[in-house]
Order: sequence, then structure tokens, then C-alpha cells
Amino acid sequence: MYKVFGDMLSGNCYKIKLLMQFLDIKHQWHPIDILRGETHTDQFKRMNPNTRIPVLQLADHEYLWESNAILNYLAEGTEFLPSNKYERAKVLQWQFFEQYSHEPYIATARYINKYLGLPKDREAEYYGKQTGGYKALSVMEDHLSQNRFFVGNHATIADISLYAYTHVANEGGFDLFTYQHIQRWFEDFESISGYIEMSRDNS
Amino acid sequence: MYKVFGDMLSGNCYKIKLLMQFLDIKHQWHPIDILRGETHTDQFKRMNPNTRIPVLQLADHEYLWESNAILNYLAEGTEFLPSNKYERAKVLQWQFFEQYSHEPYIATARYINKYLGLPKDREAEYYGKQTGGYKALSVMEDHLSQNRFFVGNHATIADISLYAYTHVANEGGFDLFTYQHIQRWFEDFESISGYIEMSRDNS
Repeated sequence: MYKVFGDMLSGNCYKIKLLMQFLDIKHQWHPIDILRGETHTDQFKRMNPNTRIPVLQLADHEYLWESNAILNYLAEGTEFLPSNKYERAKVLQWQFFEQYSHEPYIATARYINKYLGLPKDREAEYYGKQTGGYKALSVMEDHLSQNRFFVGNHATIADISLYAYTHVANEGGFDLFTYQHIQRWFEDFESISGYIEMSRDNS
Repeated sequence: MYKVFGDMLSGNCYKIKLLMQFLDIKHQWHPIDILRGETHTDQFKRMNPNTRIPVLQLADHEYLWESNAILNYLAEGTEFLPSNKYERAKVLQWQFFEQYSHEPYIATARYINKYLGLPKDREAEYYGKQTGGYKALSVMEDHLSQNRFFVGNHATIADISLYAYTHVANEGGFDLFTYQHIQRWFEDFESISGYIEMSRDNS
């Protein structure tokens, strides 16, 4: 059975939980507390030398890390990953957009605020994340004004990747009130069978 | 014929050029000067609303962006992208590592130094990139001490992704002298048939 090492309140980990719910994939969840240094133990580094969650354990000594790589692995052959070559590349395009142009702003602002309690010495960094975060939200809003989901006409792992931190962007200080297409997309996404809210109770 | 919009001295664009050389893929290269704002024109935004290079044009009104998504698209069915599901996911793992834990440190430090001439008001940011950059290099060095390439026993697009900015990391202030396994990997990579150096003359 798959083992997942992660924190249910991390968007990157929640992505894996969502797909496993949608596809009804049996797994054991092993909670990891990053604030207590649990990603920096020798044991953890043998799973992921880059000291980040989530990690998927497939077998003894067989580990996969990076949330979006794990999603691609688990979604292969399902409706959440198209078989068409161009559509698959489009899924990856939006996932790389998420990791480079979205997560470092929206997730990091949320982390500084929600996990660390917005300490004085990180205020400048926190406010510095706003411009990049809103730029990413605008790119998403424009796309969703013309398209129901990110790739094709049903949800894929690109939507899972982008939903994870966007739906809690308010916790990083982002106001989504005027983003009506993103709001509509939230509703469509949350109606997928198996959808589960982000909560530590899910572990 | 494919069209590529990019700057030959950008590592993200060089990745595409390298794979096209290795696979002998016919294309036209359209130089884009980011310092002159050429990614922010209305015409460019219709290709990539996220205003970044490279962009691959596949057909009229059909564009793909994000360097690693483009590599996956072009490498499908070739020796540079394994067909095995686990190995494919491992390729993606290293590519997401590159975009999240490597490029924002090593490529951004290089950009501030080489493109912008290390201006006073970005010195703190430049020096702040060193820790993260060296952490990424250590993860690579450890992996390459046990493995000839990043995934499997020959080069894949994971190697192309990581080679692009690592081989010019010195331009971002990183000293690779003690990274003997990375140096060995450079040699193996540069011996691939079709290899071309990073140069504006390639456009």
C-alpha cells in the first residue's frame, strides 16, 4: 500500500490527498511536522534529500517526491491525466506555472502568515509576495473566463495543483472577491465526487 | 515548422535548443529581448499571458510555454523521455526540483549579476540566493556520486533541465570547483551527439 509522508495543511500535500480521494487509492498517511524539523532527520533525508514534503513511498527504498511529479504518477491512465500528447503538455505547463509563478508567492505568504504568525522580521517578504501572487491569480482568472477547467472540459491534475493553494489564498492575504471566474471554478472543482476539505482530521 | 520565441542566453530557452539539437528537430528561432520589455507586448501576451520565455509555437494560435513542459512534449517517444511510468515520474521530480529549488536561486543570481550587472539595490537579494543555490548543488552532487545521470543510465530531459543553469552557475557566483561529480556529469553530458554551447550565435 502507498505511504504518504506529509502535512495535511500543506497545499502540496493536500494535492495528493485530493487525487487519492478522487481515484479512491488506498494509502497510509504519515504526518510530518515541518516546524519541528521532521524533514531534516537522517531518516527523512533518505526518502527526500531535498528535505521537503510530500513524499510518496511506493515500495521499500522506492520514493517519489515533488507533489506534481507524484500527481502525474498516480493519475497516469485515469481521466485526471489526458492521453493526448498536447493536452498532457498543457497539464504540465500549468503545473510548472503553479510551482514557479504561483506557489512561491501565494503559498509562501500563507506560510509566513498562518504557520509563522507573520513575525516582524518577515513582514517585508510577506508584503513583497502580493504583486507576484495577484499576477498569477490574474493569469488564472483570464484563462477561466474562457475555459471551464485548465485543460480540456473536465478536471485534471492541473486543476488539483492550482486549486490546492488558490482556495486558501485568503490565508496569505489575497482577496479573491473580484475573481468571479476563479470562484465559479472553485464550485465546479468542489463538486467532483470524492472531494474533501483541507483539514488535519484527514490524516 | 516549430517556432521558438526566446533568448539563447536564458537557460530555460537553451534547454529547448539543446533538445532540438539532440533530436535534430527543425525549427525557427525568434529572439526575444526581455530587458527591452518584449515579453510584455500585447502580441507576446497572446502567446503566453504569464509573460515569460521560452514559448513554443506548434501551429497557428497553438502555443506551449514553460520550458520543462515543452521538453516533455518534444521528447515524447524518444530516448530522452523513458516510457516506464516510474522513470517518467522521476524525470518530472527532478524537473520540478529544478524549477522550485534550483532555478530561483542559481538562475536568478546569474540574472542579477550577468544581465543587470549586480546593481547596489539588488546586492542583498543576490547574496541571499547563495544558501539555496548551494543546497540544490549538494543534492545534485550526492545523487551524481551514485548515478551517472539523473534518471536511468543515459541522459534524459531531466539532465537537460538541470544542465542548463548549473553549467553557468559560476556566472551567479557559485564555485563548482569541489563538486567533482557534477564536473564529471558535465563531461558526460557535453559528449552527447549534437551538443551545442550556450551562445547568442545559435539563434
